[in-house]
Amino acid sequence: MNVGIIGFGYWGTNLVRNFANLPGANLKTVVDKRPERGKFLTTLCRTAAFSTEPDDVINDPEIDAVVIATPVFTHFDLAYRSLNNGKHVLVEKPMASNISEALILVELAQKTGKILMVDHTYLYTGAVQKMKTLIEAGHIGNITYFDSTRINLGLFQPDVNVLWDLATHDISILNFLIQESPVSVQATGISHTNNGIENIAYLTINYGTGFMAHFNCSWSSPVKIRMMLIGGDKKMIVFNDLEPTEKVKVYDTGYNHKTDEDKKNILVDYRAGDIYIPKLDTREALTNMAADFRDAILNGTQPVSNDISGLKVLKILEASQQSIKNKGIEVEIRH
Amino acid sequence: MNVGIIGFGYWGTNLVRNFANLPGANLKTVVDKRPERGKFLTTLCRTAAFSTEPDDVINDPEIDAVVIATPVFTHFDLAYRSLNNGKHVLVEKPMASNISEALILVELAQKTGKILMVDHTYLYTGAVQKMKTLIEAGHIGNITYFDSTRINLGLFQPDVNVLWDLATHDISILNFLIQESPVSVQATGISHTNNGIENIAYLTINYGTGFMAHFNCSWSSPVKIRMMLIGGDKKMIVFNDLEPTEKVKVYDTGYNHKTDEDKKNILVDYRAGDIYIPKLDTREALTNMAADFRDAILNGTQPVSNDISGLKVLKILEASQQSIKNKGIEVEIRH
Amino acid sequence: MNVGIIGFGYWGTNLVRNFANLPGANLKTVVDKRPERGKFLTTLCRTAAFSTEPDDVINDPEIDAVVIATPVFTHFDLAYRSLNNGKHVLVEKPMASNISEALILVELAQKTGKILMVDHTYLYTGAVQKMKTLIEAGHIGNITYFDSTRINLGLFQPDVNVLWDLATHDISILNFLIQESPVSVQATGISHTNNGIENIAYLTINYGTGFMAHFNCSWSSPVKIRMMLIGGDKKMIVFNDLEPTEKVKVYDTGYNHKTDEDKKNILVDYRAGDIYIPKLDTREALTNMAADFRDAILNGTQPVSNDISGLKVLKILEASQQSIKNKGIEVEIRH
Amino acid sequence: MNVGIIGFGYWGTNLVRNFANLPGANLKTVVDKRPERGKFLTTLCRTAAFSTEPDDVINDPEIDAVVIATPVFTHFDLAYRSLNNGKHVLVEKPMASNISEALILVELAQKTGKILMVDHTYLYTGAVQKMKTLIEAGHIGNITYFDSTRINLGLFQPDVNVLWDLATHDISILNFLIQESPVSVQATGISHTNNGIENIAYLTINYGTGFMAHFNCSWSSPVKIRMMLIGGDKKMIVFNDLEPTEKVKVYDTGYNHKTDEDKKNILVDYRAGDIYIPKLDTREALTNMAADFRDAILNGTQPVSNDISGLKVLKILEASQQSIKNKGIEVEIRH
Repeated sequence: MNVGIIGFGYWGTNLVRNFANLPGANLKTVVDKRPERGKFLTTLCRTAAFSTEPDDVINDPEIDAVVIATPVFTHFDLAYRSLNNGKHVLVEKPMASNISEALILVELAQKTGKILMVDHTYLYTGAVQKMKTLIEAGHIGNITYFDSTRINLGLFQPDVNVLWDLATHDISILNFLIQESPVSVQATGISHTNNGIENIAYLTINYGTGFMAHFNCSWSSPVKIRMMLIGGDKKMIVFNDLEPTEKVKVYDTGYNHKTDEDKKNILVDYRAGDIYIPKLDTREALTNMAADFRDAILNGTQPVSNDISGLKVLKILEASQQSIKNKGIEVEIRH
Repeated sequence: MNVGIIGFGYWGTNLVRNFANLPGANLKTVVDKRPERGKFLTTLCRTAAFSTEPDDVINDPEIDAVVIATPVFTHFDLAYRSLNNGKHVLVEKPMASNISEALILVELAQKTGKILMVDHTYLYTGAVQKMKTLIEAGHIGNITYFDSTRINLGLFQPDVNVLWDLATHDISILNFLIQESPVSVQATGISHTNNGIENIAYLTINYGTGFMAHFNCSWSSPVKIRMMLIGGDKKMIVFNDLEPTEKVKVYDTGYNHKTDEDKKNILVDYRAGDIYIPKLDTREALTNMAADFRDAILNGTQPVSNDISGLKVLKILEASQQSIKNKGIEVEIRH
Repeated sequence: MNVGIIGFGYWGTNLVRNFANLPGANLKTVVDKRPERGKFLTTLCRTAAFSTEPDDVINDPEIDAVVIATPVFTHFDLAYRSLNNGKHVLVEKPMASNISEALILVELAQKTGKILMVDHTYLYTGAVQKMKTLIEAGHIGNITYFDSTRINLGLFQPDVNVLWDLATHDISILNFLIQESPVSVQATGISHTNNGIENIAYLTINYGTGFMAHFNCSWSSPVKIRMMLIGGDKKMIVFNDLEPTEKVKVYDTGYNHKTDEDKKNILVDYRAGDIYIPKLDTREALTNMAADFRDAILNGTQPVSNDISGLKVLKILEASQQSIKNKGIEVEIRH
Repeated sequence: MNVGIIGFGYWGTNLVRNFANLPGANLKTVVDKRPERGKFLTTLCRTAAFSTEPDDVINDPEIDAVVIATPVFTHFDLAYRSLNNGKHVLVEKPMASNISEALILVELAQKTGKILMVDHTYLYTGAVQKMKTLIEAGHIGNITYFDSTRINLGLFQPDVNVLWDLATHDISILNFLIQESPVSVQATGISHTNNGIENIAYLTINYGTGFMAHFNCSWSSPVKIRMMLIGGDKKMIVFNDLEPTEKVKVYDTGYNHKTDEDKKNILVDYRAGDIYIPKLDTREALTNMAADFRDAILNGTQPVSNDISGLKVLKILEASQQSIKNKGIEVEIRH
């Protein structure tokens, strides 16, 4: 299986390092517009060719899989032509600039029978994998809420607001862990610059059932917080990504509630039990992701972070954009 | 100055303890419906009389000031009759069950020239006082955002949702620290019981200027968080009420931003400097509050937590209630 | 069972409150030299008599058990006379001013067949009880080290150094958890006052086996730390008494080591597994202690914090005193 | 100024990276016994030559300065021959296997007038530099104690105990910050392996004045702690090296004490004031160290981490070794 990588910037470097060392894969060509990156490539992988021309990957009949790590506005064109040429495609998030483009790519992948995968790396971390296992095994019970805070002094992005930059990660995790389909979103935010791009924003995702998700994102907090609460009717999870080793804490905590006959008084019965901090797999998430892409191609398995999951994240982000620009009105998610 | 206290439950006990020891005040009568509380009163104050009848306070011509710590639905009647009888009144929050009642009380206090004070105790803590001082001295600069999280495993209230229970504190602090008037609110939330009372809720308060406030409140979190971020264009404050001594941290952190001529690129220039943790006054907040009530009566000063500030909190809570029951629509704050 | 309490100061107040509410016991008399304490007694217990004269307890034939919470130099005399009059005795730590006195009391208790108990309250906390259970069940394995840090800005005691004040607690816990007998101690310290009483001190307790205990105590630290590490060859415990609920953490962490044939190279094989934070009993420790005293008297059980355990703590403190005054020389523990 | 580096392992790699980018220096030759390291060198520095032979550096007349990052037992021979050939020398800590060897090197450096520097990298961190500045400016007052804890699950070293491995860092910091000369040491420890090398150890350093230093080092702690307390009679410092940004906290905390006329009662008057967390220089410490070496050579300045400071650390470690092997007896430091 021959791999070509288009885009050799900050994240592309991590991709090159991982695909260069991936058993069962051969990194054949790396493309970047800047010729001086060619020299740097040799320090990471002596066998890969370097080119400044994406077509040297897209049109190479020996290349089976294309990895795209270029600016967002180029994703559609590069992914479309790669799929069209019969390549499998792994594209950085977001998979395209809007849903229309994303839908075309998803359909093309189905038509050609090729893998289209979106790099939501978080899904391959030991922490998220462990939470998935706990939830699937029923240990948490019915999930009743999801609350995420991702704030710090962050780089102001010039083209997308803080939800597209930060909530993307948390929405992909939410979708991975929870099976329910969102019904609508509401988002509010504020821009402290005069380009109108929000640097602080809050997002609520509504569901048809007794479940709700909320996201607090900021580029303007003096303290860094990466915390996610996942409440279940059996147990609750706190995921603190800043803890070096104790990232996932499982609380044997919950409450039962009864209503008396008049339906007036709620009797809530709390339970606070042991806490359990599972050991997590510490392999690099990107290594797991590259292996998932390889296995999907070679064995026909469904990758964890596939085109449908990438599309679902996009739908929520687009709806939140519409809400935030219309004073927080409720915007439905189209399925 | 003779004081009568109506309501001798959990919070009433703290009020009795403080007024019994307040220089310049004499606790004359304490009222509670339960006769057995009379015996307990003697352990806190041997000179105060006990009665089960509110009128023994309201109609006592020797009593100058009435403190009301009874269930919310009784506030209006007791406060109204006390003011009408020429007493000064300190009432527990919220001052009344709705804005109409609160407005009547505010007007009556103005007509009779008596003090009407609402017990927002937080305003009298060393932490909030210090933040007020820092902001007023201009150290923080223009305030650009306010973000509060108040979550824990909390008692489910049978009659009001989690915003009325928890956000009340944070809204009173917000109003105390920030001079701007809110324009509208949006609130979302979820109820995990079948009485429809939200145990998790999120509130955004919008302002006409480049400022926004957000509140995250929950009775259903396995971890307890009491954290407030206040961003200014000079410095930022983190108020962590769970820290035993280092509650208020002032970050010499901020950013300047310039837009280039095309208004397309934002250049944000971060600054991260020293952090300063001021020593806080550790006197009991309730002692300060009682003294403020006394001084207002004896010296005619304006109390920090007065009827107008109590009314403003109510207006926000009522609007948030309307929003949360209408799927988060924007609800304007009437002034 | 009638109880008399001698000494009604800070700690005595807690004792009165607990014995006044202890099922199966009747608090008959409370003694304090200060007559004005009599009035305060009525707020805690309306049925107990007050006296300024210890003999009103010691010589009262109706009193079965005497609780002594007076200054250390009076412990011996009061306890001796109480035991001699056929009373059971609970005495505050340390049980006497020196080992000679303590030995006389221990012998007298044996002769009279009465309970002599020392109030090491820590042994009755949920945290220490849980650690005892874990160790006894073999979950921790062989204990290989014990390391305790107890530092803060503390009151300088006028008569005893910081080890007598603070390490006392940790030594009583150590002796409760570990069965081995100490062989010798070494202590170093420094006095920042001119009375020569150390406000910072370090103590090592040596054992005949592969086990060692170390204590770091200070009245002069700007930060407060209450942390104990207990290493076992199966698991390790971290006891952080400042955590509000997560006080005891059990680490499934350890190492195996092999030596190669030359005995030159050690191959250490680390294991880092799950972490477990058990729910702790949150009953007040003093309530458990009072019940243990009552049960020992009524049922003839051996109290957890008995005279022998009190004596063992004294022996270590006396030896550490000798070491610290002799530049840290090794001082043997007499058994 | 031409530089040669001998030893291209883990730390040598950091040295190569820094000297390759050091303005005013030219990295001419890098030596490592393993020929395969030559290929890796080209990824870090394309202009440096590679050799497996130390003499290619030591005997190269064009090389002015030699950096030695080889196993400890080779330090003396390589440093001696380099100095003898008229080179400046930077050697990894410890500078030699024992004091006799170290003294020979110090004397040789003095005779040849060349720089002999020991790489105590910690002295070049922003945190230690800031503490030095604060102490020298008199902000802390007279230093009254130094207490360091450096524990974690660490690699068991096959040849030196945990003090040589971990306390080395803290002793070099202590000596850098404090001007007083140590008088004696006492050390205790325990070995959980059968090679007798202590994996847990405690060290007290005594001074002639009212100052004492204590070190707690362990390879066997389930939690990682890197904490240093420095008490002064004006302020106190807490240095927590695990904090990502708030490493150094300065407490405006202290106490005054008076003795009454009988010299019996100590009246300690505590003061707890503001806390200040200074922003630290975040440049890589090793970059500062390399620049200090260069400046010492080119400008004749005295390097911060010089041969005398390296020798002083060795003296304390050797004395602690003697104490720990003799049951913690007091061992004097020779000056």
